Amino acid sequence: MNRKLRMGIHRIAANMDGLTELVCGALSINPEIAKESGKMLFLPEDRTYTTFEEMMEKESKLPADTRMDFVTIVTPNFAHFAPAMAALDHGFHVVIEKPMTFTLDEAKQLKKKVDETGLLLCLTHTYAGYPMVKQAKAMVATGVLGKIRKVWVEYPQGWLSNLSEREGNKQAAWRTDPKRSGKSGCMGDIGTHAAHLAEYISGTQITHLCADLNIMVEGRALDDDGNVLLKFDNGAHGVLMASQVAAGEENALKIRVYGEKGGIEWAQHEPNTLLVKWLDQPTQILRAGGNYGDRLSPFATHNCRTPGGHPEGYLEAFANIYRNFALTLSAKIDGTKPSEQALDFPTVEEGIRGMAFIDNVVASAASDVKWTKYEM
Amino acid sequence: MNRKLRMGIHRIAANMDGLTELVCGALSINPEIAKESGKMLFLPEDRTYTTFEEMMEKESKLPADTRMDFVTIVTPNFAHFAPAMAALDHGFHVVIEKPMTFTLDEAKQLKKKVDETGLLLCLTHTYAGYPMVKQAKAMVATGVLGKIRKVWVEYPQGWLSNLSEREGNKQAAWRTDPKRSGKSGCMGDIGTHAAHLAEYISGTQITHLCADLNIMVEGRALDDDGNVLLKFDNGAHGVLMASQVAAGEENALKIRVYGEKGGIEWAQHEPNTLLVKWLDQPTQILRAGGNYGDRLSPFATHNCRTPGGHPEGYLEAFANIYRNFALTLSAKIDGTKPSEQALDFPTVEEGIRGMAFIDNVVASAASDVKWTKYEM
Amino acid sequence: MNRKLRMGIHRIAANMDGLTELVCGALSINPEIAKESGKMLFLPEDRTYTTFEEMMEKESKLPADTRMDFVTIVTPNFAHFAPAMAALDHGFHVVIEKPMTFTLDEAKQLKKKVDETGLLLCLTHTYAGYPMVKQAKAMVATGVLGKIRKVWVEYPQGWLSNLSEREGNKQAAWRTDPKRSGKSGCMGDIGTHAAHLAEYISGTQITHLCADLNIMVEGRALDDDGNVLLKFDNGAHGVLMASQVAAGEENALKIRVYGEKGGIEWAQHEPNTLLVKWLDQPTQILRAGGNYGDRLSPFATHNCRTPGGHPEGYLEAFANIYRNFALTLSAKIDGTKPSEQALDFPTVEEGIRGMAFIDNVVASAASDVKWTKYEM
Amino acid sequence: MNRKLRMGIHRIAANMDGLTELVCGALSINPEIAKESGKMLFLPEDRTYTTFEEMMEKESKLPADTRMDFVTIVTPNFAHFAPAMAALDHGFHVVIEKPMTFTLDEAKQLKKKVDETGLLLCLTHTYAGYPMVKQAKAMVATGVLGKIRKVWVEYPQGWLSNLSEREGNKQAAWRTDPKRSGKSGCMGDIGTHAAHLAEYISGTQITHLCADLNIMVEGRALDDDGNVLLKFDNGAHGVLMASQVAAGEENALKIRVYGEKGGIEWAQHEPNTLLVKWLDQPTQILRAGGNYGDRLSPFATHNCRTPGGHPEGYLEAFANIYRNFALTLSAKIDGTKPSEQALDFPTVEEGIRGMAFIDNVVASAASDVKWTKYEM
Repeated sequence: MNRKLRMGIHRIAANMDGLTELVCGALSINPEIAKESGKMLFLPEDRTYTTFEEMMEKESKLPADTRMDFVTIVTPNFAHFAPAMAALDHGFHVVIEKPMTFTLDEAKQLKKKVDETGLLLCLTHTYAGYPMVKQAKAMVATGVLGKIRKVWVEYPQGWLSNLSEREGNKQAAWRTDPKRSGKSGCMGDIGTHAAHLAEYISGTQITHLCADLNIMVEGRALDDDGNVLLKFDNGAHGVLMASQVAAGEENALKIRVYGEKGGIEWAQHEPNTLLVKWLDQPTQILRAGGNYGDRLSPFATHNCRTPGGHPEGYLEAFANIYRNFALTLSAKIDGTKPSEQALDFPTVEEGIRGMAFIDNVVASAASDVKWTKYEM
Repeated sequence: MNRKLRMGIHRIAANMDGLTELVCGALSINPEIAKESGKMLFLPEDRTYTTFEEMMEKESKLPADTRMDFVTIVTPNFAHFAPAMAALDHGFHVVIEKPMTFTLDEAKQLKKKVDETGLLLCLTHTYAGYPMVKQAKAMVATGVLGKIRKVWVEYPQGWLSNLSEREGNKQAAWRTDPKRSGKSGCMGDIGTHAAHLAEYISGTQITHLCADLNIMVEGRALDDDGNVLLKFDNGAHGVLMASQVAAGEENALKIRVYGEKGGIEWAQHEPNTLLVKWLDQPTQILRAGGNYGDRLSPFATHNCRTPGGHPEGYLEAFANIYRNFALTLSAKIDGTKPSEQALDFPTVEEGIRGMAFIDNVVASAASDVKWTKYEM
Repeated sequence: MNRKLRMGIHRIAANMDGLTELVCGALSINPEIAKESGKMLFLPEDRTYTTFEEMMEKESKLPADTRMDFVTIVTPNFAHFAPAMAALDHGFHVVIEKPMTFTLDEAKQLKKKVDETGLLLCLTHTYAGYPMVKQAKAMVATGVLGKIRKVWVEYPQGWLSNLSEREGNKQAAWRTDPKRSGKSGCMGDIGTHAAHLAEYISGTQITHLCADLNIMVEGRALDDDGNVLLKFDNGAHGVLMASQVAAGEENALKIRVYGEKGGIEWAQHEPNTLLVKWLDQPTQILRAGGNYGDRLSPFATHNCRTPGGHPEGYLEAFANIYRNFALTLSAKIDGTKPSEQALDFPTVEEGIRGMAFIDNVVASAASDVKWTKYEM
Repeated sequence: MNRKLRMGIHRIAANMDGLTELVCGALSINPEIAKESGKMLFLPEDRTYTTFEEMMEKESKLPADTRMDFVTIVTPNFAHFAPAMAALDHGFHVVIEKPMTFTLDEAKQLKKKVDETGLLLCLTHTYAGYPMVKQAKAMVATGVLGKIRKVWVEYPQGWLSNLSEREGNKQAAWRTDPKRSGKSGCMGDIGTHAAHLAEYISGTQITHLCADLNIMVEGRALDDDGNVLLKFDNGAHGVLMASQVAAGEENALKIRVYGEKGGIEWAQHEPNTLLVKWLDQPTQILRAGGNYGDRLSPFATHNCRTPGGHPEGYLEAFANIYRNFALTLSAKIDGTKPSEQALDFPTVEEGIRGMAFIDNVVASAASDVKWTKYEM
C-alpha cells in the first residue's frame, strides 16, 4: 500500500465507530499539498499543518476541549520516534504504526517517556484486532487445548518478487531501504506481525530463536525472506516463516497453535473463521458472530459489529484497535475504569518486543550458533 | 439483527469514506430515548427529533448549507412509504432499506414522486455493493462467458428454525408479521436480495417464475422457505432458493451463473473471491484487489479500499452503496457528471422490481399453473 | 467416460477387495477385438465371448464351481434389459449400470424376474457407496437433525456445453440419443443419481415434482439441463438441479439436507468430508476414518479401507457397492445371514424408482400443471 | 495403521490395475495364523510360508513361469534389510516400505546388491504417486515458475499426542521404539516422506539442514516432532515441519514451492487439486483429469484412472507406484523399453537418500552449530 492509502485506512479505522474524529493533520511538508489534502479531509485550514513540530506546538496551545487528544503516526519507520516523543512531550496520546521505532534503543526511550508521562501509546498490530484471533487467544488461556506444544506461524507475500523498488514502487523503495526501514526488511515489516500474533495467541514468549534470513532478489539490501525456529518460555517449539518473494501470495498470514488436547488454525484471508481441532472429536468451525451462546469469548464478541454471516475484514480489525484504544482513552479522560476488553490493544510493551524481535532475528541470522537467546 | 444494530450498520457504512455526516435523526418516539440516543451519536439536542414528520418539517426550514441532504429510512417495511414520501416532498433525497415499500402500489407511487421531484432514491441492496459482484456483472456484460444459460442463486439462513418470534426476538417478530412485513416473509426479506443479485449480475430479467413457498415452522403466518424456478428474458433458466429454516446456516447467499464458455461463482461468506470457471481451462480464483493489471473491471476496483489480501466485508459493501450514492449526490449538487461507477447503486427502479418480485412469487405460490408471467 | 474406461472402472471396483475375480466376458461382437481384449484381461481364450447370449449359454453349462457367479452389464441403456433378463434366466446374479433399463416397463419386468428367481440384482449407484454418504444417512435416521424439512441436491456438469455428440465424442453420442439413452438425457444420466441420493440420505421419498427441463444446446434431442421442485412424503420440500451445460463444472454432485435441529452437506469432489451444521453449535467437519470413537456410524466405518487422512475416492465408493453385493452374495451362497452393512447396496427396487423418476420428470416437464404426482 | 491394514493396502494397490497377482506369502511365524491368513487371501496352502527364508528358498525352486516375480516387504523398519537381501540373492525383485532400512549402512549394502544383481527395487513413497504431485514436478521442471526460491513442506499428524505406545497401540509401539524403528521416530516415519516430496517436486537436493527435534510427550524415546531449516543445491531455502503431536491433525502433508514467477501448492487431503499461483495472474485450480488439453503433463495423466471430478485417493496413488514398477518390470521381462512415465517410481537411490536424511537430521539436532552439511 502507498502512504496515502495507508492514511486512508487509519482514517477509516479510527472513524468507524464514531468514537474519534479527525481534527487536524500534518499532511505534507509542501504547503500546497497539505492544504489540498486538508480540504479533502474537511479539516479547517488553520489546523492543516506542514510539520509535526508545528502541529504539536499549535495544537497544545488550543483550549483543552478543542485541541486534539491523540496523534497517529503513519510515516516510514525512521520517522516514528521524533514525532512520537514530541507528541508525548506536548501531552498528546499516540497511535503508531509498527515496527514502533527505527531501533530498539529508541523503543526503550519511548517506553521511558510513556511511563513518565502516563500517556497512552497504541501500536497498530492490526491482525491482533480480529475477533477470531481474540477467540483463539481466549481458548488457549482457558486451557481447553491443554498445554501448548507447538506454534506455527507463516506470513507469505509475493509483492517483492521482483526488484520493484527500482521500478518506481514507493512502498517497495522505503521498505527495502536500510536507511528508512531499519536493519531488517521482511522480518521488520511482516515478521514482527507474525511474532506478535504467535506470542499474543499462545500467551507465551519466545526465548530462543534460530534464523535463516535471505535476500532472494539480487540487488536488494535487506532480507526479503526468512525462516525462524522458535522456542517459547512454556516449553513449546515453533516456526515462523515470513516471505515477500512467495510469488502469487497476497497477504497470507496464518497461524496454528497445538496443545495436548487440540489446536486452532486461523488465516487472515478468511478472518471470520477459526478452525478448532480436537484429538478425538471432529474439527469445529467457529465463526465470528456465531450463534453459540457463551462458546464465543467476550473478547471475540466485543470486537464484532455484525451477526454471523456478515463478514468483517481488515478495516474492522484495524478499527478494533482504535476502538479499544479510544474506549480506554475515554475512560481515562472520564476517570472511569475501562473494561478488560477495551484494554486489549497493543502498547509500547509490544512495540519494544517487536524491536527486540528484529534485533534478535538479525543477530541470529548472522550467527553460526544454532540457538540465539532472545535478548531485550 | 435488531433495529439498533441495523442503524449502527447504516451509520458505519454511510460514514466510512468520510463523504457523509450524521447531522440529525428521528431516533425514537419516546423523547427520553430519542434524546439519549442523539447524545450517544453526538447529535445536537435540537436536531434530535421524535417523529419523522417533525424532522422533515424542521430540517426543511434550516438554511440550505445546514439542513440535511438526505434521509435514511431503517424502519420495518410497513413504515417505509410515509417517511420516504415526506422526505421527497420536503426536498430531501432518500436512502431506504429493501424491500422498498409495503406494497407494489406504494412502490409505484414512490417512483412517480421521485420522477416528479428529480430527487435521488438509493435502495440498500447491500450485496450488490461487493467488488467481486461488480466483477461478475462486468464479466457477464463483456461476453467472455458467452450467452448466459443458467442462473442459480441460493440464500439459506437458519435463524427462524424455531418460532423465535414468540420468544421475544423482535427482529423475528416484525419480519414474520404480515402487518409489518408485508405479504411475504422469507421471499420479501431475503428472496428479494437473491432476485436482485440474479438480475444484477446476469444483466437479464426474470420473465416467468414458478414458486413453491412453505411455512416450515408451525404457527408462523408467512413463508419461511421457498424454491422458485425462473425464466429470464435472454432465454436463460434458473433457480432461486431462499430459506430461513436451513438450520445451521448463517447468511449463505451464493450465486452461480453459467454461460456457453464458462461460469462464475460468488459466495457472500468469502466475498473477496470470485471463482471463474472455463469450459476448457483451469478454474481461476479472482480476488478483490488482486494484482492482475486490467483483468479486474473498473467497477470492481472502484469499490475496493484495500489491496489484495486485506479482506473487506459486509460493512464495506454497504459503504459502497452509500459512497456511490454520495458521489452521485455530490456531483448533482456540484452540477457535474458522476462517473459510471458512482452511478452504479440500486434505485427506485430496483425497488419496484423487488416489490413486483414479491407479488409475483406469492401469486405463483398460490397458483396451480406451472409458470406465472412476471407482471410489473 | 468412454465405454472402455467404464469397463475398467467396474473391473477395478469389483476387484479391489479381493472378493471377486473376472473369469469371462463378452467384450466385443468383433471376434478379433474380443480376443485381444480378453488377452489383456488375462481371460482364458475359451471364456472370451462375442455375445452375451453365447456367454450365458456356455457359462451355464460349466460346472458350478467354475462358471461365473454374476454378470456385470455396462452397455448403453437400451442394451441393459435383454442381457439382464438372459442372465437371470440362466441363473446368474446381475450387476447393472443405472438407469437400470430403457423404460419403466422393462424395469418392472426385471423386478418380476428377480422376485421369481430369487437372484440378486445390484444397481451401481456409485455415489451411495461413499462412507460419508452412509454417515449422512445414518445421522438422519437416528433423528439427531430432527424432522427433515429441506432436501437440496445439485449435480452440475459442463461436458455437454457444446454439441460434442457431433464431434466424435462417443459417450456424448449415445447419451444424447433418444434411441440409445431413453426419453431423458441429463435427468436420466445424472438426475437419477441425484434423486437416488436425495431419497437415500433423507430416508423419505419424492411424492410430487415440478420439472423444468431444457435443451440448452441447439440441435440436441434430449434435455441437457433441468431444475425440479420436489415434495417428499414426510412433508419436506426440495430442489433437484442437474445440468450438463454448466460450463466449467466437472462432476459436482452435492447434497444438503436440513432438519429442525441441523443439517448436513456433502460434496462428491471432497467425498471424505461431511459438514454437520447445528442450530446453536459450531459446524463440525466429520471425516471418513476419523478418530471419534462411535460418533461415526458402523455404516460409514464398514465402507472405509484407510484411516483418517488417507483419502478414498470414486473407485473405492464403486468398490463398496461391489463389496457389499459380494458379501451378500457370499452369505447367500454359504447360507449365512449377511450383515446389515453388507445388505446396504442399491437393488432392483432403486432401479424401478430411477426409471419412475425419469418418467415422472419428463411428464411434469411436458405439463402446464405445477405439481405432478409421482407415479410408479 | 496396523500391520494387517498396511498389508491390505499393499494388496489393493498392487492389485488395482490387474498387472500383478498375489501368489504366495510369509504371513506369520505362527503356522496356524499363516495358514488362516493365506486362506483368506485365496493363496494355495503350499505357498503360504511362515518365514521369508522359507519363502525365498521354496519359491526360487519353482519353475520360472510359476514362481513369484517380486516380493513386497511390509515389516517394521528393523526387519527390512534381511528379507530384501535374501530376495535379491534369490533373484527376486523387491518392493519395500520406507524408510528403506534400519541404518544408512544397510541402505548402501542394499544398493550395492541391487547394482550387482540388476534387479529392481521399488520404494513405496506413496505420496509421490499422486497425479497432481507429478504435475507439480513437471511444472517446476519446465521452468514456468522460474528459478525455485522457496520450498515449504509440512506434515502434521496428531495420533501420537498421547503416550499411546503404552496403551496397546501396536503401530505406536514399534514406531516409537528405537530398536524397531531406528534412530528417529517422527522424522524417520513421516519426515522422510516430506523430504522426499520436497526433493522430488523441486528437482533439487537438500545440501544443508538445521534441525530442532523434540520429544513432546514425556516418556517417549524418539522424536515425535521436529522443525528443520533447509538449503537446496540450486540456492533455494526451505522449511520442513513434521509432527505427530499436532493434536487434531490427520495426515495433513502439504507442500508449497515458489519460484520467481509463481508457485504451487498441493495438499494430500485434497489430492486431486493443485493450486498454481502467479505473480500477476489469478491463481489457477488445476484438477486431476481436468479437461485442459495438453496443460496437464503426461506424467499427471498417465497416473489418473478417472476423468475430472471422479476423485482418486491414497490407494490409487499407492497403486501408481506399483503400476509403474510393474510396467517397468514387465518391460524388463519382455526385453522392451519402459516409458518415461513407467520409470517414474522411487528406487534404491531414494531409499539411500531417505536414510541419509534421517542420519543428517539427527546429527543436526544434536549439534550446536547452525548448519549441518548433508552427508551421504
